[in-house]
Amino acid sequence: MFVKNAWYNAGWDYMVTQGKTSLVARQLAGERVVLYRKPNGELVAMEDRCPHRQAALSLGAKEGDSIRCMYHGMKFGADGHCTEIPGQAQIPARACVRVHPVVERDNWIWVWMGDADKADPALIPFAVGYSDPAWRMKTSQMHVKANYRLEIANLADLSHLAWVHQKSLGGSDAETRARYTTIKPTITTGPRAIRTEYVIRAVPAPQFLRHLFPAEARFDLSFDITHTIPCTWVLHFKAFVADGASEGVPSGALVADTYTCQAVVPNDTDSVEYYFSWGSRADLEFPGLSDLLREVLDVAFLEDAHVLEAQHVRMREKPDHPMVAILHDAGPSRMLRLLDSLLAEEGGSKHAAADARATAEQAVV
Amino acid sequence: MFVKNAWYNAGWDYMVTQGKTSLVARQLAGERVVLYRKPNGELVAMEDRCPHRQAALSLGAKEGDSIRCMYHGMKFGADGHCTEIPGQAQIPARACVRVHPVVERDNWIWVWMGDADKADPALIPFAVGYSDPAWRMKTSQMHVKANYRLEIANLADLSHLAWVHQKSLGGSDAETRARYTTIKPTITTGPRAIRTEYVIRAVPAPQFLRHLFPAEARFDLSFDITHTIPCTWVLHFKAFVADGASEGVPSGALVADTYTCQAVVPNDTDSVEYYFSWGSRADLEFPGLSDLLREVLDVAFLEDAHVLEAQHVRMREKPDHPMVAILHDAGPSRMLRLLDSLLAEEGGSKHAAADARATAEQAVV
Amino acid sequence: MFVKNAWYNAGWDYMVTQGKTSLVARQLAGERVVLYRKPNGELVAMEDRCPHRQAALSLGAKEGDSIRCMYHGMKFGADGHCTEIPGQAQIPARACVRVHPVVERDNWIWVWMGDADKADPALIPFAVGYSDPAWRMKTSQMHVKANYRLEIANLADLSHLAWVHQKSLGGSDAETRARYTTIKPTITTGPRAIRTEYVIRAVPAPQFLRHLFPAEARFDLSFDITHTIPCTWVLHFKAFVADGASEGVPSGALVADTYTCQAVVPNDTDSVEYYFSWGSRADLEFPGLSDLLREVLDVAFLEDAHVLEAQHVRMREKPDHPMVAILHDAGPSRMLRLLDSLLAEEGGSKHAAADARATAEQAVV
Repeated sequence: MFVKNAWYNAGWDYMVTQGKTSLVARQLAGERVVLYRKPNGELVAMEDRCPHRQAALSLGAKEGDSIRCMYHGMKFGADGHCTEIPGQAQIPARACVRVHPVVERDNWIWVWMGDADKADPALIPFAVGYSDPAWRMKTSQMHVKANYRLEIANLADLSHLAWVHQKSLGGSDAETRARYTTIKPTITTGPRAIRTEYVIRAVPAPQFLRHLFPAEARFDLSFDITHTIPCTWVLHFKAFVADGASEGVPSGALVADTYTCQAVVPNDTDSVEYYFSWGSRADLEFPGLSDLLREVLDVAFLEDAHVLEAQHVRMREKPDHPMVAILHDAGPSRMLRLLDSLLAEEGGSKHAAADARATAEQAVV
Repeated sequence: MFVKNAWYNAGWDYMVTQGKTSLVARQLAGERVVLYRKPNGELVAMEDRCPHRQAALSLGAKEGDSIRCMYHGMKFGADGHCTEIPGQAQIPARACVRVHPVVERDNWIWVWMGDADKADPALIPFAVGYSDPAWRMKTSQMHVKANYRLEIANLADLSHLAWVHQKSLGGSDAETRARYTTIKPTITTGPRAIRTEYVIRAVPAPQFLRHLFPAEARFDLSFDITHTIPCTWVLHFKAFVADGASEGVPSGALVADTYTCQAVVPNDTDSVEYYFSWGSRADLEFPGLSDLLREVLDVAFLEDAHVLEAQHVRMREKPDHPMVAILHDAGPSRMLRLLDSLLAEEGGSKHAAADARATAEQAVV
Repeated sequence: MFVKNAWYNAGWDYMVTQGKTSLVARQLAGERVVLYRKPNGELVAMEDRCPHRQAALSLGAKEGDSIRCMYHGMKFGADGHCTEIPGQAQIPARACVRVHPVVERDNWIWVWMGDADKADPALIPFAVGYSDPAWRMKTSQMHVKANYRLEIANLADLSHLAWVHQKSLGGSDAETRARYTTIKPTITTGPRAIRTEYVIRAVPAPQFLRHLFPAEARFDLSFDITHTIPCTWVLHFKAFVADGASEGVPSGALVADTYTCQAVVPNDTDSVEYYFSWGSRADLEFPGLSDLLREVLDVAFLEDAHVLEAQHVRMREKPDHPMVAILHDAGPSRMLRLLDSLLAEEGGSKHAAADARATAEQAVV
């Protein structure tokens, strides 16, 4: 039910420190992973499960480049091979922990959960890190008790901004709502990602910025979203003074230029860890702006969590309940089809089949 | 495992207000239901599940007589038909939410969970509402983590008052106990209800009233109980000064005349919501009396919950444990047989069969 | 998955009092048991489940030697036979509760969970009680959310002291660690117990005592452990001033002479109740010493619980994950084989088979 050959986000680089006991436990796509940092700064990602008796390595100890299980003292190199079994000279070849390819990029940690020889860093999604001097990215995190497919569907169609987020990200006026629900985007589909571009014209500022402008101010809002499997979502968002045109590239003054980078990570089939950032281009920042952007995501994703957790409960109660497709399912269906094609490619398990069935309904528009 | 063609209690009328966001979520017989009030005051009861993707309608918004799902903005009339899908002109016929017949009566809300064309308000049990000027009914509520069949059995045999409720509703003296455990009631069985009438003679006042009378005072207590499927229980309780007779209608002075109305509602197979009231006839009320009656039910039902929740855990652990029948099972068996006959009528599911097996043991006395 | 024909520990004798409502509920090897004390002081252990409708007898009442279910008032003698059903003259022969043999010894309560006629008190493990005047035993208790087999494995190999307990029971210096992980014990295997004896020579004092001695002090530590099925663990621990010899009976001055008695009791397959004591020989006690011993067990068993609970979660996630055997599994494998041979003897249920499979891997060294 999870694509294995993919990079899974394991949070921000600052979460794994050089601290003596900094062994960070994660659940990624249903698997236990422990992360630690070698003295030279490089990360190691390993199954969080001692091959002896399944003790948690994340309760162990770091020793140089190695990790020691603190139950019986077995020591493992950064390559996962056991190098010491206290009280025992011979080390069985099987005494080995699975090591995952891990890459730090844009201040994010990426772990490959599939075949190591297929781990291509070129597949890591583009993002803007908090340490990029050209931007003022602010970071945050949330735990949501819902299947990650519900998050994918949520992020793949922004018409819900008009409803779920009318008091935060969206607009509560009929004018803005109409714009959000009648978007005609340009869509580019790649093997693992879908890019969606559109401009919403002549709308009031979004709720969270509206108090900063005169009531009559109108803006052209430009969206450029890349949504990557399993679920990384990066938006380049710009606001221009409305130019009066109804199409083409906005030509009004640039009021805001921002990036938000979001990674939804399935812990298991019932919850996700959500790492996200938002920030202004450095030269357009003014005090408090990027912090405001981060804050509004905290508010908005609680609004989403409220909806998605109730939806998850109901989906679990009635997995076979008939569902009605609507036009706004186009985006979600596109992403879920992409996910299901990768799942099928990896072996067509019964889970993939079940997932495909669920998606089939979403695909019918 | 639940009778569908029945009225299920959804609480007191005051729980669903004209408030802008008063969308009340219930679980009735395993189904999610949202209740709201139209501007004209009429109630609507609808499946709490958007037909699009199972979002909770109870997290939505009221708009006149309609309800709007606040995930993607789909709007549904009070008849359950979708009237608007933002961003889409055509509305599929399947875009429809199940609407349940709902009736307010005696300050209680009743929802019909089966075929709408079988919803006969004449099947709603008799009760006395808190707004009835002839009585001083006080209301309360409790959540109990037990299967509703255990509650049915509990209410269908009052001999347990002598044990579970010896410090509250019952009597702790041997004299009272003997009376409670040797009742010979008059029983009238209807298609969906059983009426049980009896008089207990020459007993001290019940525990909760005893301090109001001289120690030597003796009373004749008259009980008239109607227990309706699935589990509404209404008792007309009167106390007379003992007349010294051993049978016939009590002829002593009437000391108390009260009604208690109780609805046990299965949320699912593991818990119930319990709505109850008790009050004195208005012309016999004195300050604090009806509040005392309500208070003693709060105490007594906690005593029951303690017993029933432990029993529920044990029943779940050993569903096939042999059980011994006793004479006092006559009442519970009668009610559970009535329930099972209705379950069988509705289609003889495997659940009904399993339920019938459980009841069979209770029926053998 | 549990040996039935065995004595299970139900805690300390002081836990079941002569109090009017002292009805103590336990879960022993998956079964509900209620304990109470007759007026003459003798204990009764009975299934905590009324034969009528599975109400909890532990919510009942004591009456002389009998117990009364406080749901419908059924009364049971100390032999489990029903002697009264209120409102009913005839008592069915089946109205009977299972009674378990129960013995108090060394201040511990032991309940036999199998065939009563096989209950041989000679099978109760040796222990030192807190009321033994020759010792100063102090008692404590802990709840751990792990399968009891993990506790057996934990107690059957003390090499983990060097890792899990390096700051409490073990030693954090390389010298001590090396000693703890290269022990060559004398092992004696009985039908239900394994005795393990060894001496660790010329080590610093254990962590929890080290501050009481000069840094250069070295000790010979003598261990004599009896581990009994299902999981009682008794250690006679002595410390001598190091005599410089490398083998034989330590001949230095006796610094400490202590017993620790520990019973791990499976509630069900997912948790255990742990009752333990530690204390000094009375004539070697000084103020605070035995309290220190008890305190260090509280600390150490929290360290174990942390490890075992994480291990339990992982074992549940991947019951078929391959596991690598090491030399230190010798002790655990020996104990688990003994357990499995008793399980197989009792009937070779599928659980026993599954348990045996799990142990087989542990047995391969």
